[in-house]
Amino acid sequence: MSLITLLTDFGLKDNYVGVMKGVIKSINPEISLIDITHNIAPQNIIEGRFMLMNSIPYFPDQTIHLVVIDPGVGSQRRGLIIKFKKGYIIAPDNGLIRGIFEEDQLLEIIEIKNPKYWLTSSPSFTFHGRDIFAPVAAYLSKGIPLKNFGNPIDPASLINGNFPDYKVTNQGIIGYIQSIDHFGNLITNIPENLIKNKSWFLLIKNIKIPRKNTYNDGKIGEIISLIGSHNFLEIAVNQGNAQIRLNLKIGDQIELFFG
Amino acid sequence: MSLITLLTDFGLKDNYVGVMKGVIKSINPEISLIDITHNIAPQNIIEGRFMLMNSIPYFPDQTIHLVVIDPGVGSQRRGLIIKFKKGYIIAPDNGLIRGIFEEDQLLEIIEIKNPKYWLTSSPSFTFHGRDIFAPVAAYLSKGIPLKNFGNPIDPASLINGNFPDYKVTNQGIIGYIQSIDHFGNLITNIPENLIKNKSWFLLIKNIKIPRKNTYNDGKIGEIISLIGSHNFLEIAVNQGNAQIRLNLKIGDQIELFFG
Amino acid sequence: MSLITLLTDFGLKDNYVGVMKGVIKSINPEISLIDITHNIAPQNIIEGRFMLMNSIPYFPDQTIHLVVIDPGVGSQRRGLIIKFKKGYIIAPDNGLIRGIFEEDQLLEIIEIKNPKYWLTSSPSFTFHGRDIFAPVAAYLSKGIPLKNFGNPIDPASLINGNFPDYKVTNQGIIGYIQSIDHFGNLITNIPENLIKNKSWFLLIKNIKIPRKNTYNDGKIGEIISLIGSHNFLEIAVNQGNAQIRLNLKIGDQIELFFG
Repeated sequence: MSLITLLTDFGLKDNYVGVMKGVIKSINPEISLIDITHNIAPQNIIEGRFMLMNSIPYFPDQTIHLVVIDPGVGSQRRGLIIKFKKGYIIAPDNGLIRGIFEEDQLLEIIEIKNPKYWLTSSPSFTFHGRDIFAPVAAYLSKGIPLKNFGNPIDPASLINGNFPDYKVTNQGIIGYIQSIDHFGNLITNIPENLIKNKSWFLLIKNIKIPRKNTYNDGKIGEIISLIGSHNFLEIAVNQGNAQIRLNLKIGDQIELFFG
Repeated sequence: MSLITLLTDFGLKDNYVGVMKGVIKSINPEISLIDITHNIAPQNIIEGRFMLMNSIPYFPDQTIHLVVIDPGVGSQRRGLIIKFKKGYIIAPDNGLIRGIFEEDQLLEIIEIKNPKYWLTSSPSFTFHGRDIFAPVAAYLSKGIPLKNFGNPIDPASLINGNFPDYKVTNQGIIGYIQSIDHFGNLITNIPENLIKNKSWFLLIKNIKIPRKNTYNDGKIGEIISLIGSHNFLEIAVNQGNAQIRLNLKIGDQIELFFG
Repeated sequence: MSLITLLTDFGLKDNYVGVMKGVIKSINPEISLIDITHNIAPQNIIEGRFMLMNSIPYFPDQTIHLVVIDPGVGSQRRGLIIKFKKGYIIAPDNGLIRGIFEEDQLLEIIEIKNPKYWLTSSPSFTFHGRDIFAPVAAYLSKGIPLKNFGNPIDPASLINGNFPDYKVTNQGIIGYIQSIDHFGNLITNIPENLIKNKSWFLLIKNIKIPRKNTYNDGKIGEIISLIGSHNFLEIAVNQGNAQIRLNLKIGDQIELFFG
């Protein structure tokens, strides 16, 4: 295990991310560190989960993904190590990993309990990323066995998170916006495999949105839908910003109609 | 080749940059990665080219510069590997490398064609950074010979990009703003060597702007011009923001008068 | 010495940080680089000092901290290498290191004078981070002895910086805001050890602010004070933004009353 990724809502204004890296390097100087992003909207588990789910496939096997989007820090929420076929996730138990891999990919879940592998046995109330999650990731990367960190828990006991799923109806699919990228493209939670070889259209705020293959298809300024590089239905504007044009936000519902 | 730099307009909100790094580390776990910047204005080739040109001299020989500012992604624009005396550039063919080094520095240009070194032989229409350019950079860093990636092309066939050059006139030089930094300093495309030992002044919006040596010369709040650390003529405000004061943007014309 | 951190006010829009890393890697290809933050408010020594002070304890021994917040660049202000028990700081002499460690932690201070270890013997007037501080950090990391960089100076001669300290009064403590984080939490300069086991309250703009343990204590939207993860008194809003609610900025005074 030679690579740890970091995914947080800490932003890049403060030293929070740098300090977590210092803690990790103090324990394992040889480790490589890669930022996924630190600009998740504060406490937004929907977006954090989306970023995690869409990053894991592109990292080496045995990568440790350290995910700190943690509205419940300081409360009794559990801290987790999830071992799955391709690697590890270290995260609070709040819905961040709901549905992000098939059941047979999941190998073991440990509740983090042993302060021996924390920065301090009296962690701060407000920054478990530094005091618990980062040092646990570093010790895990050094080969400390999973069982040393705490006891296995039942996957059925995981917190589900307070966000919806898509629904397939008679007419089509009801989904929601799960991420908005830097260019203002709206990424829904409707997966490619449900719509790839079907005929469909979107209707948003009474605008019928045509289906295209790339951002540059259609006229400049036209609102289009396409299957994005994340393999989800995406809404974009050719050389423009769909978020601003449609005034939608993460969690907003969108409806696709077959036919 | 032990170092790859990344320069994009992807921003740091999404996981796009992190995912490209995951792809690279999956192929070459030993590689070092350094971000030049990911905050190029979306699809702004002028600014991307400027940042690339002003970064190359400071990196080790044999560095691979991965540049993804790619308004034409998904269209038929070519992907390139440029081998030059000091290293390599991997970028779309859209003007990003126009004039950034002398002809005798340029050793070879390859059009990227061989899907063997891509993430997938069916790349997405929207994210060639992840599917083509990042894996090509990683394989190149592992020593795969240039000819394996595709065929050489004629440098004369490169896309020129749709942006102006400076012009020397009888009276002075007409240039344009090619970058605006974090402090609001306006960096023009008028090079130091044309003005260093001459007497000149700038006239912008009827303001005659004095020439200084450092940001702290002159009064607080004064608009000044100086030769900046990039070796281009730069417009600044002592302890202030020239972009806001003068209300100029990238591509805007400025005029320098000798005398 | 295998780790250099970078802390600046350069932002992430430009290539300034990337170029400093290129300079360092050109001199010492094996070095690890970690960003503390580059989003210090421009030329804000109060905030830069705070970030440095709160980062050092979390990094490995012998780490070199490269700090470039440098309003006086191009003037006669001195450049420093500070050797202390846990590591090194390379920074301009402008108050950045005032009071950040106990006197007995300080081992030696060198004024940077020898251009042999600079990028060029004619450094630019505007970017000593690239031309002087980064190469000095890189050569120091390679084991070049301190005395080669310049002569020792008297710690008593260091610039004190133009910012206040907290004051203990008969009634309580007068402090100021020294940092505002990404979540809008206001971090004061009143240290935990002065208030930990005492009874006190804050009065800000005639609002009496209750004391809590975590961000989630109290009602949603309530303004609270707590001892933050930095071990300073902090003002926060449960699931909200204290900076916006109270309209305070770095340097603003706040008053704590015992009782």
